[in-house]
Amino acid sequence: MHSTDPSLFALVLAGGSGTRFWPLSRRARPKQLMALQGERSLVERTIDRLEGLVPDERIHIVCGPDHVEPTQKLVGEKIGFVVEPCARNTGPAIALGSAVVAHHYKDPTIAVFPSDHYVRNPEDFRARLEAASRIADEGYIVTLGIEPTRPETGFGYIQYRGDQPIDEGYVVERFHEKPDADKAMRYLDEGNYLWNAGIFVFKASSLRAEIERQRPALAARLDTMAAGDFEREIIEQEFPRCENISIDYGMMEGAERVAVVPAAVGWSDVGHWAALHEVFETDEHANVVQGNAITVDTRESVIFNKTDTLVATASLEDTVVVVTDDVVLVVPRSKAQQVRALVAALEERDPAYL
Amino acid sequence: MHSTDPSLFALVLAGGSGTRFWPLSRRARPKQLMALQGERSLVERTIDRLEGLVPDERIHIVCGPDHVEPTQKLVGEKIGFVVEPCARNTGPAIALGSAVVAHHYKDPTIAVFPSDHYVRNPEDFRARLEAASRIADEGYIVTLGIEPTRPETGFGYIQYRGDQPIDEGYVVERFHEKPDADKAMRYLDEGNYLWNAGIFVFKASSLRAEIERQRPALAARLDTMAAGDFEREIIEQEFPRCENISIDYGMMEGAERVAVVPAAVGWSDVGHWAALHEVFETDEHANVVQGNAITVDTRESVIFNKTDTLVATASLEDTVVVVTDDVVLVVPRSKAQQVRALVAALEERDPAYL
Repeated sequence: MHSTDPSLFALVLAGGSGTRFWPLSRRARPKQLMALQGERSLVERTIDRLEGLVPDERIHIVCGPDHVEPTQKLVGEKIGFVVEPCARNTGPAIALGSAVVAHHYKDPTIAVFPSDHYVRNPEDFRARLEAASRIADEGYIVTLGIEPTRPETGFGYIQYRGDQPIDEGYVVERFHEKPDADKAMRYLDEGNYLWNAGIFVFKASSLRAEIERQRPALAARLDTMAAGDFEREIIEQEFPRCENISIDYGMMEGAERVAVVPAAVGWSDVGHWAALHEVFETDEHANVVQGNAITVDTRESVIFNKTDTLVATASLEDTVVVVTDDVVLVVPRSKAQQVRALVAALEERDPAYL
Repeated sequence: MHSTDPSLFALVLAGGSGTRFWPLSRRARPKQLMALQGERSLVERTIDRLEGLVPDERIHIVCGPDHVEPTQKLVGEKIGFVVEPCARNTGPAIALGSAVVAHHYKDPTIAVFPSDHYVRNPEDFRARLEAASRIADEGYIVTLGIEPTRPETGFGYIQYRGDQPIDEGYVVERFHEKPDADKAMRYLDEGNYLWNAGIFVFKASSLRAEIERQRPALAARLDTMAAGDFEREIIEQEFPRCENISIDYGMMEGAERVAVVPAAVGWSDVGHWAALHEVFETDEHANVVQGNAITVDTRESVIFNKTDTLVATASLEDTVVVVTDDVVLVVPRSKAQQVRALVAALEERDPAYL
């Protein structure tokens, strides 16, 4: 184990406005602001996880104007904010955040994190980040690649060269988009494929070089914003004109020196209600039960109750029940993603519930 | 159609304290006091159904002391009450009610009804009762037998002699207890079997004669109560000492002159949540939906919401969701009777919810 790297900065991407955790997540309270466990929200836990590795003063949250206030209330005054005037995907968001930090510090090493993921083993996670930071200091753009535990078709994969180790990582062969079931099974069998969790570590100069080479228009807009000292007005003028593109597609896939650090850290993107089984302890019948509930002969279900109401289930299997102050959601666990269809229907019928 | 029989009296049995409609039904608000549809409770609908056939002044409700006040609030002042100091099953309850009415009127014809059933066609129902009343006036104890619509194993059956018609009914061959699935199928095939719905019509003297013959101890207690003018004190002294026995087992099975009037009147005992499909109109996907709800791709389910909360379901099948002010119940439709197991568990853990 190496000592904490005092020069590491963090960007936490908190622009998400997903609805897959409706009705707990709402437009005004997206997933990263939700507390799944206990009192602390996912964005707070993302910051907690960096304790001892990145001091609060070196953390910036990138989010939209509507979410600055509720997010700041949670994370406190020491954390900085970089405001995206509109959503332009992760490419411009990370490029802007990185440029803002580099405007104030000399070639910082920056780690980028989604704000709405879960990590069971934060200590292991920090050790992986320290390794990534060391490799980044050699000029690589480094990703944390999650050791796959199933042939998941919902994530992108990172293929690495086992014959080219660097420190505790490897040189990346290439990025792969979400595979079909056969491909996912093959990736799992071959062994040198990791899940792309959207976690990156790089020196600001390394990312900047790739942006200049691959996305010159974006580089020019960043220069204009830097010339305007990243004041609100100049960002509001330039940022909306940036190309809407993910960092994976826009920069990583074409980057010259990319490395990955494998991480088996109990990671979950907590992508929908059924994924709570990856996050929570289950009872003896494989249920996740949170809040006031009584279950009789109930199996493999998720009961998530944020109210004083009693949730009572009998002979229930593979079902998600979520209770908030104004909504009761019931959906089969295997169809948890169908919450999107409900959200779409409410969009038409009663958007006040969104 | 015959004209209304002015001499008909009614006993409505409202002693039930069942929990199969928990959480809507509670100890303090049993099923018969619940409003399943609109504003009127099942006991009110039982009385509404007799309109034009039995005037309110000739209706007595038989129930326990705790339920007199909430029931009277619903049904109004004209309805009489016969109070059972404790539950002794339908035999003593009907015997007492009948004796009380006969104490004040000369050999009345009395119809007995459960208070918590549903009848889709009240007009047909009244016509069947009028026929039953005419047969009763000839000295028979008459039951209304429901034409079976499925090989139900949850009801007793009445086998009648198709070769011995009386008026619009038949002489009863015998009563059968709840059958197994094979027997139920055979009953349905044979055709001369009807469901026992607990609806009886008789002259008070006919029932009295059977009680004297079959249950002399009960007859003696009724005499003691009559000698005491059925005052509360004498009932409280004598009634608890009566044998706990159903009218079917205690009197009907051994009775000498029993007839049945077949009735296809859209009857349901609304025995559990899944039975709401017999009572309510369903939507195009065979769902019963009552109250504030949005359903996407949901089939053959029951959504019963008594609150302002939105119930939202997606890709749900064959599931019962009930929402009251303090409970959310979720149970597979085929396991609706498992509500009993929940009630038993709450008895231990948190009886305040019962």
